Amino acid sequence: MYHYPPSILNLIKHLSRFPGIGEKTAERLAMHILKMPRGDAEQLSHSIMALKKSIQLCSMCFALSDSEICKICSDASRDSATLCVVEQPGDMASIEKSGAYRGLYHILQGVLSPMNNIGPDEIHIKELMERIQSGRVREVVLATSTSVEGEATASFIAEKLARFEIKVTRIASGVPIGGDLKYVDQVTLRRAMETRHAL
Amino acid sequence: MYHYPPSILNLIKHLSRFPGIGEKTAERLAMHILKMPRGDAEQLSHSIMALKKSIQLCSMCFALSDSEICKICSDASRDSATLCVVEQPGDMASIEKSGAYRGLYHILQGVLSPMNNIGPDEIHIKELMERIQSGRVREVVLATSTSVEGEATASFIAEKLARFEIKVTRIASGVPIGGDLKYVDQVTLRRAMETRHAL
Repeated sequence: MYHYPPSILNLIKHLSRFPGIGEKTAERLAMHILKMPRGDAEQLSHSIMALKKSIQLCSMCFALSDSEICKICSDASRDSATLCVVEQPGDMASIEKSGAYRGLYHILQGVLSPMNNIGPDEIHIKELMERIQSGRVREVVLATSTSVEGEATASFIAEKLARFEIKVTRIASGVPIGGDLKYVDQVTLRRAMETRHAL
Repeated sequence: MYHYPPSILNLIKHLSRFPGIGEKTAERLAMHILKMPRGDAEQLSHSIMALKKSIQLCSMCFALSDSEICKICSDASRDSATLCVVEQPGDMASIEKSGAYRGLYHILQGVLSPMNNIGPDEIHIKELMERIQSGRVREVVLATSTSVEGEATASFIAEKLARFEIKVTRIASGVPIGGDLKYVDQVTLRRAMETRHAL
């Protein structure tokens, strides 16, 4: 491997371990870092370390947070009677971006997956039950993904919640807004048809 | 922007400035860094800084190097009578990977582009002439890209070299190996036909 000096090869090696980044893209990114002003590269380097040092999981909802209780859980203006259950922090971020939800969250940090030995004890279902038992919650919105595992996780939690006197809802699935019907898969279309509603 | 703590947003902002990396991908990369073992993240952070500190341009060929003269220029086993002229360090890396070339390189660090105010003085053509004048070079292989600007740069250099008694060659262009003829563009196909050779 003569074609790049060791420090470049080293960075390319690190970058190519990222998901969706192959060796070619890693090479392009390394070249970009090389061309960056020194200050920018320093900031990038520091922000990586800062991330590892400062981020923890919120002790209530398991969201990524830079304090023990995250900003959403400690925001008094949010509706603490509604809990939205999602799989990953990124899902929470997506819902927040939509602006359609003003309640609190509970991040499972995973999804039930017997094939990968992930049962109810491996994800934060126990902590969800504890939050429900505390008695303030009136509605739980199950917003796990619409994959087989996400659906199974939602059903599992819904069953567990049946003994409480709370509303349990599931986010709607159907044809995406702006989506052309001819490009929508059959399963989604069938679901959209089954859950059709009066206008 | 409630959905992520500031240290994550900061890293996403830095990553989304990379070429070909949008906000979504930057988010995915940041999540990956968050999940990395701490040691790996430290190594990544250090390798970025190490790159900026250690890399310079070879004073002979303008390749990326961690010493004043790069490894290729200082390798006595390579054919110093042949110079391959390329636009960017990445082009040199590609040729090295092919294993088809054992001479030295000259990296222009750019391409003639009147539209962007890049003339002969903005790229390392003067230094190329100096290397030729030193008298050891017998052949110059022009391996600039086959874009309009790359072709123009090759022609310009070829003209400048006409007064020396050396061989000036251009890398061949034509149908890529393994390429299906029906997917090859017309210009490439015409070139391949014009430069056909006897078997």
